[in-house]
Amino acid sequence: MSLEDDVLARVKPTPQEAEAAQEAAARLVKRLAAAAKEKRIPGTPKLMGSVAKDTFLKGPEIDVFVTFPETTPREDLERWGLELGEVLDDPTRRYAEHPYTRGRFGPYEADVVPCYDLASPSDRMTAVDRTPFHLAYVRERLGEAQRDEVRLLKAFLKGVGCYGAEARVLGFSGYLCELLVLRYATFRATMEAASTWRPPVPLELDTPALRTFDEPLVFVDPVDGERNAASAVSLDTLATFIHAAREYLEAPRPDFFFPPAPPPWDEQRLREEMGRRGTELLAVVSTAPDLPEDVLFPQLRKAELAMRAFLEGEGFRVLRSQPALLEDAWILLVEMEVARLPAVRQHHGPPPWLKNATAFLRKWEDAPGRLAGPYVEGGRLQVDVAREAREAGEALERAMPDLSLGKNLDEAVREGFDLLRGEELVGRGYDDVVGRFLRRALPWKVSSSSSRGR
Amino acid sequence: MSLEDDVLARVKPTPQEAEAAQEAAARLVKRLAAAAKEKRIPGTPKLMGSVAKDTFLKGPEIDVFVTFPETTPREDLERWGLELGEVLDDPTRRYAEHPYTRGRFGPYEADVVPCYDLASPSDRMTAVDRTPFHLAYVRERLGEAQRDEVRLLKAFLKGVGCYGAEARVLGFSGYLCELLVLRYATFRATMEAASTWRPPVPLELDTPALRTFDEPLVFVDPVDGERNAASAVSLDTLATFIHAAREYLEAPRPDFFFPPAPPPWDEQRLREEMGRRGTELLAVVSTAPDLPEDVLFPQLRKAELAMRAFLEGEGFRVLRSQPALLEDAWILLVEMEVARLPAVRQHHGPPPWLKNATAFLRKWEDAPGRLAGPYVEGGRLQVDVAREAREAGEALERAMPDLSLGKNLDEAVREGFDLLRGEELVGRGYDDVVGRFLRRALPWKVSSSSSRGR
Repeated sequence: MSLEDDVLARVKPTPQEAEAAQEAAARLVKRLAAAAKEKRIPGTPKLMGSVAKDTFLKGPEIDVFVTFPETTPREDLERWGLELGEVLDDPTRRYAEHPYTRGRFGPYEADVVPCYDLASPSDRMTAVDRTPFHLAYVRERLGEAQRDEVRLLKAFLKGVGCYGAEARVLGFSGYLCELLVLRYATFRATMEAASTWRPPVPLELDTPALRTFDEPLVFVDPVDGERNAASAVSLDTLATFIHAAREYLEAPRPDFFFPPAPPPWDEQRLREEMGRRGTELLAVVSTAPDLPEDVLFPQLRKAELAMRAFLEGEGFRVLRSQPALLEDAWILLVEMEVARLPAVRQHHGPPPWLKNATAFLRKWEDAPGRLAGPYVEGGRLQVDVAREAREAGEALERAMPDLSLGKNLDEAVREGFDLLRGEELVGRGYDDVVGRFLRRALPWKVSSSSSRGR
Repeated sequence: MSLEDDVLARVKPTPQEAEAAQEAAARLVKRLAAAAKEKRIPGTPKLMGSVAKDTFLKGPEIDVFVTFPETTPREDLERWGLELGEVLDDPTRRYAEHPYTRGRFGPYEADVVPCYDLASPSDRMTAVDRTPFHLAYVRERLGEAQRDEVRLLKAFLKGVGCYGAEARVLGFSGYLCELLVLRYATFRATMEAASTWRPPVPLELDTPALRTFDEPLVFVDPVDGERNAASAVSLDTLATFIHAAREYLEAPRPDFFFPPAPPPWDEQRLREEMGRRGTELLAVVSTAPDLPEDVLFPQLRKAELAMRAFLEGEGFRVLRSQPALLEDAWILLVEMEVARLPAVRQHHGPPPWLKNATAFLRKWEDAPGRLAGPYVEGGRLQVDVAREAREAGEALERAMPDLSLGKNLDEAVREGFDLLRGEELVGRGYDDVVGRFLRRALPWKVSSSSSRGR
């Protein structure tokens, strides 16, 4: 049995499992139709997602869309959609761009999502109205055997950390996997193609692009030439996949699909690694608002960029940073390359020939914070002035409430946050996050001895 | 009496002084002519420079060029030129681009410079062959009264630290001062023009440019449209002059011409200032080869750039740097903004789709210096590796012998150099240089209380 057969045996639902999922999905659709009828809601539930396309892995999620006539007011669509979502167990309302309900249905995770029933995907009124067209497109074209090729590709992408279009991953969606298999026919052929990719990578099926895209990977959505079905894929995710494809083809190993999970570093090891790196580790920690990841994570990315821009703007240097979302807290980790600066900094003025040169001189000539100058350097007036915050942690702690992080994180910070440094981070429930941040390796290469250099 | 009359009274030679200088110059020319005749050297001495143009300040230098027929072999011209230079007292041979002799003649500094006697300046064979044409051009056009305007401009430029085309200053030559007065008629009008300049500044008289120039100040040489008579002027010198002109016109004060010379900082004050700035001060000190400034200073500039590039390339950050040439030593001062770095540094590899990606991985996968990775960031493979030198002084000390500083400085460093840090610099004969480096202010604004902030 080949490696890929072996992988498929591990990830593909058994006929019994597949049948059970299909039956559960059909039951949920029926339940929603009954509820709509009872509540006189003019919506029609339809099964979507990987269960509808038969490309699901073990333990699938069930996605049911409720379609409404185009004439339905947006407000009603949203209200009715959430009302129907109550048929799920443990329903929680989610408001990404578009409100929907996530809950459980028997042993499955399930989403109930309202959308419009459109004649053409280009008429779309909400972010999800194209989904029924995606389903139809894939169902019409993807052959029986190719569904397993999609499963292999999904399993591979999962293993190498590139599966999922959400902000935490910035990777490949299930639909994109299906498109890739439609484009290249098999998992192997997709890997071979990917191993030769060099961003920007432009791909399409039967629909040409109706505009230009600037993302590193472009797969023109066959149901809408205005859209890039790979727009979520970041350069780093794409580069990781390309690299993984090259290494896999050279030496296929189960590790790509099922990466090893080495034991987390204990507190002593964490302290050791911090010492060996000799960097200053900073973390902003605050309470996570009770909101879904797809609301919070984009804000965490925004916060990460705002923090980096602030620190670099003050003259510090960031080696790397990473957000993480825990059970009830979020954390932004920053490893500093330069965390301490001298008392003096050069304050740049205008060139002497600009109007505001005089104002600059008047302001600084006898200012109390001036340490030297004004003088001319680089064609501009300059003064040496006293730096306000010489230490990155101190500067960040002071600036956090003023950084623009995103609505919900701004609120969280206003209510309170901790700024932790180095060993203060150890043993407070973040050890695993910090360990993975410092360990940093390609997932299929992590071993328990990894990074035990010299 | 106006400020400018007053200045002129202080800088212009008295009629007696002027006559004495002219007489000495005539005597030197005669002496050289006699020597040439006696030694059968086919050269004709001619007075050049500010004495010939009557634009000199008190205590002028006497420049005599010895012109040779175009047919003279270069080797003979150089040899004969140096031979005739021996008529000076204390002659020293100087080899910039072109060998000449500097010495004394009575109370005057004097240069004896060989050159070719050409029909046109565009035939030039050595760097100095245009000088006789400059002399003729200025003498024909500069009126009696304008000579004092030139004197004022020279005195002003001297006062604000912008006079002299040599590498130490990168400023305005005497010839450029004369051209500016020919262009604008008076000192005042030159100042008014300068106060509106905004680099790049393109100027000319009756000769259009025969090529494009990329220097911040361009004054097309009227005797050769291929040459920029202001090519030595750096952006910072130009900006300083523009700034000084604006401030002078707003509030004329003698300080611009005769900047105050505050007492040098004593050792205690130096230590205090170093402490207040909180930076790491580094200095490379070595023996100055017995060569003229115009040979050594360009090498010092080159060395300064090489040092900065090295330090920044290693990840340190330079706040500022400055070379200085002392009696028998040269010194390169560097003030560090970041002088200490963590044990780890990120080592950038190629993007995974490049050929050398595999080599990079093989090299680093199990290398002893690896602290984390390989991983993907910014679309490239990366590893975290141990940094060799964490401290700027240590890194510089190790690298100095391998930096390309210029022929004579390379030799000096090979024979030995000191790397001094912070307080090690105090009380070793460099206090004045270090003090001016730290004090840093526009010359007309330095006061003894300057930089006593807060």
